[in-house]
Amino acid sequence: MEDKLMLMIPGPTPVPERVLLALAKSPIGHRSGDFTKIMADVTAKLKWLHQTENDVLILTASGTGAMEAGIINFLSKGDRVLVGENGKFGERWGEVCDAFGIKTERVKAEWGQPLDPEAFRVILEADTEKSIKAVIITHSETSTGVLNDLETINRHVKNHGKALIIVDAVTSLGAINVPIDAWGLDVVASGSQKGYMIPPGLGFVAVSDKAWEAYKASDLPKYYLDLGKARKDAKKNSTPFTTSVNMVVALQAALKIMEAEGLENIFARHLRHRNATRAAAKALGLSLYAGADNYASPSITAIATPDAEKIRSTIKKHFDIVMAGGQDHLNGSVFRIGHLGFVSDRDILTAISALEGTLQILGHTGFTSGAGIGAAISALNSK
Amino acid sequence: MEDKLMLMIPGPTPVPERVLLALAKSPIGHRSGDFTKIMADVTAKLKWLHQTENDVLILTASGTGAMEAGIINFLSKGDRVLVGENGKFGERWGEVCDAFGIKTERVKAEWGQPLDPEAFRVILEADTEKSIKAVIITHSETSTGVLNDLETINRHVKNHGKALIIVDAVTSLGAINVPIDAWGLDVVASGSQKGYMIPPGLGFVAVSDKAWEAYKASDLPKYYLDLGKARKDAKKNSTPFTTSVNMVVALQAALKIMEAEGLENIFARHLRHRNATRAAAKALGLSLYAGADNYASPSITAIATPDAEKIRSTIKKHFDIVMAGGQDHLNGSVFRIGHLGFVSDRDILTAISALEGTLQILGHTGFTSGAGIGAAISALNSK
Repeated sequence: MEDKLMLMIPGPTPVPERVLLALAKSPIGHRSGDFTKIMADVTAKLKWLHQTENDVLILTASGTGAMEAGIINFLSKGDRVLVGENGKFGERWGEVCDAFGIKTERVKAEWGQPLDPEAFRVILEADTEKSIKAVIITHSETSTGVLNDLETINRHVKNHGKALIIVDAVTSLGAINVPIDAWGLDVVASGSQKGYMIPPGLGFVAVSDKAWEAYKASDLPKYYLDLGKARKDAKKNSTPFTTSVNMVVALQAALKIMEAEGLENIFARHLRHRNATRAAAKALGLSLYAGADNYASPSITAIATPDAEKIRSTIKKHFDIVMAGGQDHLNGSVFRIGHLGFVSDRDILTAISALEGTLQILGHTGFTSGAGIGAAISALNSK
Repeated sequence: MEDKLMLMIPGPTPVPERVLLALAKSPIGHRSGDFTKIMADVTAKLKWLHQTENDVLILTASGTGAMEAGIINFLSKGDRVLVGENGKFGERWGEVCDAFGIKTERVKAEWGQPLDPEAFRVILEADTEKSIKAVIITHSETSTGVLNDLETINRHVKNHGKALIIVDAVTSLGAINVPIDAWGLDVVASGSQKGYMIPPGLGFVAVSDKAWEAYKASDLPKYYLDLGKARKDAKKNSTPFTTSVNMVVALQAALKIMEAEGLENIFARHLRHRNATRAAAKALGLSLYAGADNYASPSITAIATPDAEKIRSTIKKHFDIVMAGGQDHLNGSVFRIGHLGFVSDRDILTAISALEGTLQILGHTGFTSGAGIGAAISALNSK
């Protein structure tokens, strides 16, 4: 049906009407007093969302641009770093390091499995010369729906004492608890089209004092993504280059909605939706790509099935719901349900009902009618 | 008056209602077939606007990001380049080169004066060893309202034969004739919040075959701003990283409006507005910062007056019009009127009337009442 699409992908995520209307306001000057006030308010709200007193800088860039900024501002050519790699985005940060001549050791796990904190502990403890400059981790792996154990890996980084922890929190920030100050996370990058409930186009980087110390020593060339410049202007509630004014105004509206819901409620909602989606998938005889609940991302559920693409095209055609396909070698054998951002319990029921309808259309058997929605309702109601 | 601001600054520029509403549509997936179709249409329209068959790539970045991409993708560390410098943006491209270890010779003119094409000719002709890798020029200097003679400078570059011409067309593209293929321009960078009539947040880079040859030799590190990646995905009407979906949808709406007006009409309109604004300023006893018409930018008029800031605050307070201040050392002694993008003859009359009213409030004398608007109307009606 024309103009009836419902997004259940891991970004872009649905945007509240109030935020869309804020986006559509005529732009104002990015150097005006009015905009400075908006930036001050947005920055305060971003710090609340990031649970930090550190700088949280806004870049006109996608999440990848934010993550690249998080790497090239705090490292130098030839630096030794550990990169966690258990999906497409872990691979990407290794590629960024390669592009800038940073020496990586990829600490790998199979796609669909979480990174093993022990593997990091062993390498970090063996590094008595403290030659490891950073550990780079993807918190929620968007490609697989796996949540890595950032808290434990970070504890090993803290025991090392020297290395920075650099985190891709693109599908975790604003959805999953990432207590930056409590855990002492140094660099945390994220993107607007995820938990933030606004369209793609802005990136965010939170930076600790320890990371700013490392910034002084960094010799990698940068200008547009130079966070030192961004920090200097952020102190005046401004940006070194023209920022995406309309997106910042939309962000202000979205953050206001998030404040009203409260962090605890936001995190609990994402967890509830993960549980409901997983319970329903199991009840419908589908195979969860991230096998165990304790490492399943609250933002996204990946389902492994040989008819993944048929399910995607059928649920779109019959029910106007968009789900994501598998990335790289998972293309065709996995589909992914995003339950991230502006998603309510009603949306989960809708998606599960439509998924069940789709499976029936495609001739799936082995579940009783209503099994998916029954499991979802039960999971939503539990606790 | 609340919500009544009228922007007459050189970016962000006013955005048509139809474009704002396109911006406010719920986002769709950036990897969807629907979005691929939009990208194909937008790319075709961008090539039309750029008057080129070359690649025109879309970046989620500001104009500075686009310009940095235009530099770091086609040059290497230690390369010798000439950088035209007669305002803030010329200075910026020198800074970008410095940040990446590119050896610059700054070819300077006073702020408010155009670059001297002869100065480029002399250096380029003396370079018999063909060691100059690129000439980097700001076409319309936003900080001063000066239009540099790109056509003549480029002719000298073409006679040199080896060097690339890299152009900042941020306040010229979509406002002033920049015939990329006819002139053989290699790299042309621009930003969305100017002639394109959409908010800030997207950058554009047009790249010639000759520049792509240079790309192969470039040794500067890059990832997010790697135009080779962007080109590869653009062939599939996609982008390597999540693009600013809503902005691209808005861009499509804006380009459709521009197509309907036609390139010749767009360029003639900007020229007419420049002439009217300059004639009015003179009739009101104001001093034009770019002294002669033959190098005055059709996009922006800078006016030198000791009460520049008073004029800006008064015209905003009384008439809800925002004009820009002077940048760097011009702060306080210059104000700038943007007549760029979605600006009609009516807007020029409005701005000039309000400027005249403002000058009367501030006690300016030496002009007869109505002199500004009379001169503006006469200029708008001529030819």
